Amino acid sequence: MKIIEGGVCAVDGVMASGACEGDFGVSLIVNRDSVASAVFTTNKVVAAPVTLTRKAVSNGKISAIVANSGNANCFTGSEGIENGKKMAEKVAKFLDLQLSDVAVASTGVIGRKLPMPIINSLIDEALPRLKNSQKSSRNAAEAIMTTDTFPKEFAVETTLKNGEKVRIGGMAKGSGMIAPNMATMLCFITTDVEASASELYDALKRAVDKTLNMVIVDGDMSTNDMVVIMANGRSGHIDENFQEALEYLCENLSKMIAVDGEGATKFMEVEVKGAASVQDARTAARSIASSPLIKTALFGADPNWGRIVTAVGYSGAEMDEKVITVVLQSEGKTVKIVENGDVKAYEGSEELVTAEEIMEQKEIKIMVDINLGKHSAKAYGCDLSYDYVKINSEYST
Amino acid sequence: MKIIEGGVCAVDGVMASGACEGDFGVSLIVNRDSVASAVFTTNKVVAAPVTLTRKAVSNGKISAIVANSGNANCFTGSEGIENGKKMAEKVAKFLDLQLSDVAVASTGVIGRKLPMPIINSLIDEALPRLKNSQKSSRNAAEAIMTTDTFPKEFAVETTLKNGEKVRIGGMAKGSGMIAPNMATMLCFITTDVEASASELYDALKRAVDKTLNMVIVDGDMSTNDMVVIMANGRSGHIDENFQEALEYLCENLSKMIAVDGEGATKFMEVEVKGAASVQDARTAARSIASSPLIKTALFGADPNWGRIVTAVGYSGAEMDEKVITVVLQSEGKTVKIVENGDVKAYEGSEELVTAEEIMEQKEIKIMVDINLGKHSAKAYGCDLSYDYVKINSEYST
Repeated sequence: MKIIEGGVCAVDGVMASGACEGDFGVSLIVNRDSVASAVFTTNKVVAAPVTLTRKAVSNGKISAIVANSGNANCFTGSEGIENGKKMAEKVAKFLDLQLSDVAVASTGVIGRKLPMPIINSLIDEALPRLKNSQKSSRNAAEAIMTTDTFPKEFAVETTLKNGEKVRIGGMAKGSGMIAPNMATMLCFITTDVEASASELYDALKRAVDKTLNMVIVDGDMSTNDMVVIMANGRSGHIDENFQEALEYLCENLSKMIAVDGEGATKFMEVEVKGAASVQDARTAARSIASSPLIKTALFGADPNWGRIVTAVGYSGAEMDEKVITVVLQSEGKTVKIVENGDVKAYEGSEELVTAEEIMEQKEIKIMVDINLGKHSAKAYGCDLSYDYVKINSEYST
Repeated sequence: MKIIEGGVCAVDGVMASGACEGDFGVSLIVNRDSVASAVFTTNKVVAAPVTLTRKAVSNGKISAIVANSGNANCFTGSEGIENGKKMAEKVAKFLDLQLSDVAVASTGVIGRKLPMPIINSLIDEALPRLKNSQKSSRNAAEAIMTTDTFPKEFAVETTLKNGEKVRIGGMAKGSGMIAPNMATMLCFITTDVEASASELYDALKRAVDKTLNMVIVDGDMSTNDMVVIMANGRSGHIDENFQEALEYLCENLSKMIAVDGEGATKFMEVEVKGAASVQDARTAARSIASSPLIKTALFGADPNWGRIVTAVGYSGAEMDEKVITVVLQSEGKTVKIVENGDVKAYEGSEELVTAEEIMEQKEIKIMVDINLGKHSAKAYGCDLSYDYVKINSEYST
């Protein structure tokens, strides 16, 4: 497996483009006659584009995605559905596709009507620019940014067990409102693998559960999230090598989203091992990555490890403080804070000094061994800074 | 029912005192030969004092409480248990009580050994000062403060159905780490009602589920929380009038805790009506009060109501966006943002202007009618400010 350039356009046959105006952007990705699958927000309030794309993908194939930033088209009633359809129709008409071949996605403020004149003109601008190039993929990734500070793209190439090369490209948009089970997270993945819709869904679900669903910025879950994958079948049949590459791609996009959490100054990777079940491992990892007290401690470089044990304690995961191990790690440094329930980083200890040094770093890994079972999980998060408060106290005005 | 002065000492026979030194404090409350009951944190990591007090209260009677601030005595192993016992023993000896007559509580940093010389000297200082006075109750309430900015006391007098007067006094300590199902929240309640231990437990549980368990500052749940009630039986038998007064007392202490949330500049009361079950009503109310996006919007006076609907959507409560009603209220002003699924506060509407005015206020009520059932619940919270980040990024160092 190797990392390659080109984002979604790293895959042969894919075209992309983007257009922006003020707070609004439109991004297009075309991968004709693709088998498609998607996973969506589990919020009971869902935006119009989620309803539309769920329907489009239910046929098991799509050819294009149109996404806009600046407005979530959520809580907009039947007019929202009509507006979402108009976005898809415009793209379908230009590309000579059926309405049901086009997925729609939106991100932005909730409860406001889509400003169709702006969205239409951005789609008109983006359509003739569709191209298979690194630059056009980048343009598309930039057009769906809201409070993101950098575009998020990744692409890999791997070799299937039958020797054929297969490529996967992805782009994501994250930043605020990122929570377990997805939040204003849009992620579009292209590939040339050959797969049935259900094989593709299983692969995507497995990858997303381990990665994108384990990214936590603030614990709120959006009404608009979706991860869509389009596989054009030009390469060989899906297998475990593809799965591994897909998970690697999703993990890298997840890290980019966490690094770029609203106001984030630090990245945290949480790894929980020794859990009694996968669910317990995920719950505990999420609990740590979600804790405002751990997030502020991270921001302040405060090695307040009691908050880590506490977050595992209230997560709901099976645990016993008498056997838990907590390790902090940053580049070149590792320290056992608690080992099998014994506190090592007591006041005045060398361990506490090392813990303080680690907490000063930009990228911190928190490892917890529950020591009760064999299951593990990772979660990705960031600190809670003054800027998170600033960004979100001023967002809609 | 009337509000009276005196905190825990409003109840005949109760004595209190407090002593402080630097970050540490010790608070004593004595209510001899009381029937006692308590509710505790549901965190799987529990502090030594929680273990000790759970045991003491299991006998159904206690005579005193000793509480310290500055150190949680949590994750301190068998030495922590021994130190907690020593605190209780010192008090028991002075007051000629059994060890099992004394409840212990602690709040502060996790994972550090109790500094026994300081704690002992503070207990020695506080014991001879025990007195039934408004001032001694206040001293006790002040001694358990950590990042609290004001002591929290409340007392009421009501008339039982048989005509006898009964009094209830309470003190609480809140601030950071306050979450559903309690967090570093200590609450001590005295009363002269007569009740069995199980009657007292039922009354306390009913009151706490509706009030103290619905206070949310940051969503973290502490290892140390407890609410302890001591009833000396000098007045009449427990009844519904007592229950009403107890809930009123707990509601008022809850509001004080929320108002004084770490870094809080605003108070939010959330009321959810029309839920399919009590559980749904509580879940939805907590979800709104917990949302970092709603909390920052409150801080920034941003009427970003989409975040309210979203928080109900991901709460897990049964809901349908087509029938939901959302109302914002502050002193003298009420506005329907969404009525039965129709957005009233669209851009340019008078409703949005009023919503903006309401969000500028210090005390804001968010009312949601799910319109699917008959159950309701309240939750109490505060905004998320720069100061929350500041306080919690520097806490342990």
